[in-house]
Amino acid sequence: MALSGPVPESDAFFNPGAIALIGASVSPTRIGGRTLASLLKHGFSGRLYPINPSHDVIQGLQAYARIEDVPEPVDLAIIAIPAAEVLDALHACIAKDVRAVVIYSSGFAEAGGEGATMQAAIRSLARKAGIRVLGPNCLGFMSLPSRTICTFGQAPNIGLPAGGGVSIVSQSGAFGTYAYAAGLFRRMPISRWITTGNEADVDFSDCVDWFVRDPETKVIMGYMEGCRDGSRLIRALENARQAAKQVVILKVGRSPAGASAAESHTAALAGDDQIYDSVFRRYGVCRATSLEEFFDTGYALLHGLAPNGRRAAVITASGGAGVLIADEASAHGFSLPPVPDNVQRDLKKRVPFAGVRNPIDVTAQVGNDPQLFSQFFSAVAETGHYDAIFCFQGLSGLNREPAERLLRRWTELRGKFPNLPIFISAMARAVAAMCDRHKTEIVPRPAPISGPAPWPKLNEVEAAERLSDAGIPMAPGVIAESAEEAVAAAGKIGFPVVLKILSADIQHKSDVGGVAVGLTSDETVRRAYDNVMSSVKRNLPRVAVDGVLVAPMVAGGIEVIVGARIDPLFGPMVMVGLGGTMVEVLKDVSFCLAPLSLSEARSAVNRLRGARILDGVRGNPAADKEALAEMLVRLGDFAAKHAGSIESVEINPLIVKPEGEGVIGLDALIS
Amino acid sequence: MALSGPVPESDAFFNPGAIALIGASVSPTRIGGRTLASLLKHGFSGRLYPINPSHDVIQGLQAYARIEDVPEPVDLAIIAIPAAEVLDALHACIAKDVRAVVIYSSGFAEAGGEGATMQAAIRSLARKAGIRVLGPNCLGFMSLPSRTICTFGQAPNIGLPAGGGVSIVSQSGAFGTYAYAAGLFRRMPISRWITTGNEADVDFSDCVDWFVRDPETKVIMGYMEGCRDGSRLIRALENARQAAKQVVILKVGRSPAGASAAESHTAALAGDDQIYDSVFRRYGVCRATSLEEFFDTGYALLHGLAPNGRRAAVITASGGAGVLIADEASAHGFSLPPVPDNVQRDLKKRVPFAGVRNPIDVTAQVGNDPQLFSQFFSAVAETGHYDAIFCFQGLSGLNREPAERLLRRWTELRGKFPNLPIFISAMARAVAAMCDRHKTEIVPRPAPISGPAPWPKLNEVEAAERLSDAGIPMAPGVIAESAEEAVAAAGKIGFPVVLKILSADIQHKSDVGGVAVGLTSDETVRRAYDNVMSSVKRNLPRVAVDGVLVAPMVAGGIEVIVGARIDPLFGPMVMVGLGGTMVEVLKDVSFCLAPLSLSEARSAVNRLRGARILDGVRGNPAADKEALAEMLVRLGDFAAKHAGSIESVEINPLIVKPEGEGVIGLDALIS
Repeated sequence: MALSGPVPESDAFFNPGAIALIGASVSPTRIGGRTLASLLKHGFSGRLYPINPSHDVIQGLQAYARIEDVPEPVDLAIIAIPAAEVLDALHACIAKDVRAVVIYSSGFAEAGGEGATMQAAIRSLARKAGIRVLGPNCLGFMSLPSRTICTFGQAPNIGLPAGGGVSIVSQSGAFGTYAYAAGLFRRMPISRWITTGNEADVDFSDCVDWFVRDPETKVIMGYMEGCRDGSRLIRALENARQAAKQVVILKVGRSPAGASAAESHTAALAGDDQIYDSVFRRYGVCRATSLEEFFDTGYALLHGLAPNGRRAAVITASGGAGVLIADEASAHGFSLPPVPDNVQRDLKKRVPFAGVRNPIDVTAQVGNDPQLFSQFFSAVAETGHYDAIFCFQGLSGLNREPAERLLRRWTELRGKFPNLPIFISAMARAVAAMCDRHKTEIVPRPAPISGPAPWPKLNEVEAAERLSDAGIPMAPGVIAESAEEAVAAAGKIGFPVVLKILSADIQHKSDVGGVAVGLTSDETVRRAYDNVMSSVKRNLPRVAVDGVLVAPMVAGGIEVIVGARIDPLFGPMVMVGLGGTMVEVLKDVSFCLAPLSLSEARSAVNRLRGARILDGVRGNPAADKEALAEMLVRLGDFAAKHAGSIESVEINPLIVKPEGEGVIGLDALIS
Repeated sequence: MALSGPVPESDAFFNPGAIALIGASVSPTRIGGRTLASLLKHGFSGRLYPINPSHDVIQGLQAYARIEDVPEPVDLAIIAIPAAEVLDALHACIAKDVRAVVIYSSGFAEAGGEGATMQAAIRSLARKAGIRVLGPNCLGFMSLPSRTICTFGQAPNIGLPAGGGVSIVSQSGAFGTYAYAAGLFRRMPISRWITTGNEADVDFSDCVDWFVRDPETKVIMGYMEGCRDGSRLIRALENARQAAKQVVILKVGRSPAGASAAESHTAALAGDDQIYDSVFRRYGVCRATSLEEFFDTGYALLHGLAPNGRRAAVITASGGAGVLIADEASAHGFSLPPVPDNVQRDLKKRVPFAGVRNPIDVTAQVGNDPQLFSQFFSAVAETGHYDAIFCFQGLSGLNREPAERLLRRWTELRGKFPNLPIFISAMARAVAAMCDRHKTEIVPRPAPISGPAPWPKLNEVEAAERLSDAGIPMAPGVIAESAEEAVAAAGKIGFPVVLKILSADIQHKSDVGGVAVGLTSDETVRRAYDNVMSSVKRNLPRVAVDGVLVAPMVAGGIEVIVGARIDPLFGPMVMVGLGGTMVEVLKDVSFCLAPLSLSEARSAVNRLRGARILDGVRGNPAADKEALAEMLVRLGDFAAKHAGSIESVEINPLIVKPEGEGVIGLDALIS
């Protein structure tokens, strides 16, 4: 990978030659003094310049009144002074040609008012000067290989690894510190650690990008609360994917933050969080939902233990634990194929009462013969039948066998089966999250389009025409403005027909009596026209009506709802859900960023909880899922192409006909 | 509670005066010697009699060749000899009038063949003699207050609490030992610990019952793999409920163990595990799905911390952790109502940047002022708005504040709000599992009926009549054996009508063309009759047909499927699910033991994932949920009354009409 340029901008943070500490304090316990104390204590090898007009010497180093007095170029400045003085200090840094700045100070956007104004000024100053600013209101960062310990938080007191393949970015200082501590307890080899605070300039996506370009980082672990610029996040994740860096993100905010204001189905059902899911899915990011999962996943990714498939074996010394793990593994989509018969027979010979099918229970006999576990493990692993092996040794560490011997045995097994993912007491959910990444081809996203004017409000016939032109099959509809026109249209289309009220202002037509189905004669069409018109006028007397749409009645097939929308954060995306109550009550929908590949479209359909309906239930024929997937690809292209002109598309219902017969949209809205 | 009799049978286990150890070994590390060594080492205060014909003195005690040589009555005998010698030893114990026996030995039912026969003999010997036998193939038990440490497993090496309010029963020895260790690490005050092994005589339910009658036990924790006698389990749990003992059970085997053999909907959808769920729900048992949850729940129950409702506050020192916990709490059904405005204002005065709505974020300021957390906590708790408070202090124990001080502060808060459930870093799932217990009234279950002969095979009209007689509204149907009879029946019933093929052998009538709906005239009925008959004959030429059922066409309402079945383990139960694809594809059904109360029936309906459909969606009127619940009560009574004569009932569809209009079953099968 040739992603790194001549000197990456992160270099001024990760490997600074000279650091100025603005607001440095003589007390190593005060916020202004902690960073200097840390840098001195932990052996930072560059030069340090305390800046403080009240002292000549600070913590044994010569101090300077102003940064401009520093006798050499400064790479990195740390600002730890009250908010009101920060902008002046930043100006001074820029005048000194500092390349990177960290602002610890709080009292900016999080305080509102004046603080927000000052933060905007920080941003624009940084951009104009071409420097990078981390913070304000952050706990700073650490680059462990170079001992650049620039934080006033607790992290350095917890421990300092020598570096390694893992880098962490956190939007929360407190959470970042907690994650750092938890990572260290698990012996994670952490290399860089960044907290981004208010993100006036440097944001989560920048840090991901820095880690992508950082040759030491193999695994990127991110804690995220939200994202203000979706296209930057997408670009960073795309770069990570291309550089084959592994990413695990713990994004909070899964629960709905209140009722969505959006009105159309697509928007109402989207829920921001599901969109993050589709972004993460597309770029092969493992999403964790708890700290345990976050670290289990990070650890497994670091050691190349992401399984290639979902065939798992469970091996334990306790039958009960085996069933418990099997339950959890099944709940997360693993299959547990039985051990081959001949191997089962061999294992039974060694321990007649052992469980040998799968889960495999070595039994308490392992207490008498510690080699048994390894022997069972090897026999199962050697079959080559399994993508992952889950183990649990119950009282390891508690029982009489020394932990070291146990560890040695596991190390031997790891050496013997270097490519087999082995999980000891791991969470099946974390392992499952790693399984399906990078399996689907993705389509490059065009740059966001801006410029073209929004389309005028379209009625259904017009909307259907636009979609038809884009290769999306829509039922032919004819507008009728009188009963006689409706009869004539029905004659042209062929019976049976349906009538639907035509109005850009009515979304749920059948709720207001605006639909008549199964009309088989001139006379029924004529009567239905009058009924529909009068019912709508009675229910919605003030709404403008363009007439009635006459369309062929489509019998059979399965109703789905498909849509597209231009997400304000992440741009065009498509949605698919099963029709009727499935989508209404169960919110059984799935999302994809657009444009999308055919394989992404297929997996969006198969992700629906009710997907089996499309395969044919109760004697119904299987529906044309392939045509549905193809249609989603075209709808994605349509949304991407017109992202600047439309907000959303909804086709409801779209009928998925039996296999080989395609799909047809009956009703469309574009807004 | 006056549940305990004069001397409970468990007394011989928990407080034996004299123990005989059959197969006692001179070596304290061999299985036969470990128990004696443990009892001696840990200060058991009763008399110990090693039984072994080869030694005069064992571990410093006088040994006896045979149990009959022991010079006083023996309460408890431990058998640790090869399987082949166990029956003789048991005979000797019975001759000596021993009251309780533990058999460690393996090689019984788990080995099959001869072993199973020997185990059956153990059972019948024990029953005949009126003694209780624990095991075989078990790790024994411990009664900690009396220092009766009768296990050859690792448990006593891990530690021995003085006793307390928690007792554990485990069907797995290895898991039981692991659970014991995990409990001790969490400082659970464990009183009794029992592993039941093969359960030749004493089973899981017996142990629950012993714990119910044990005045020291407040919380019963059970690990369960399966149950052979449902009525005993139900009785034990019923006793626990009546004695207000708290029960938490970790039952494994949630994943389907393969395709179900049962054919009818009700049976096929039941899945044994869901039935355990309904048993546990009925008796207020908290079901855990992981060890963490098992202990979080046990601990909270012990300290009376089960919340009374689902209004939660989240208070943390890290905004990120707060959102993470809020996500998890929401996912498990907690609501997070905002802190009252005046309290929000007060908190903002103390920490201007704090999050004060809910989740509440004290912010890193807590590092400067450790009292802040308590102040925020008290202000929120004092509102009285919350049923539970979830807290997380991130780096507690890691940061500079000593753990003791932190603990002291929490102890103060607990003292200040003794009745408020506070959860620190607990699993929301565990807390949620405690919320809804004991809220619904339950109906006593009649003793299982046996004796009455099975009913003959009933056709639909006969089935509907039986149900109508039981107060379950069924659409009137008339059997017609010719087209002309069908026309006459339709005239009597009134148009529109439906025709359905009538045959006790056809379950899914529409799949074979056996249904015609919406018939509005003599002529259409006549034609439909011929079509239905010929279509069924074509599809199922060998099936006996009783004619055609003519029934009124019911328009509108919401289709559900209801059923009852006599579970081989737990007896009569009812099922309800939403009709069509909801039940077929999503398995959206819920179960209740029968007979059931109206409140149980209501909650079974409301537990359906798609329950909102019944409340009216897309302008449909709300359905008569109350009538559905009443109907389920009647169906439960019917199933309980005829449990000896029927296997299952299925009413599909049952139409739930708009509120106040009741329900009506259209099609019924009784088998």
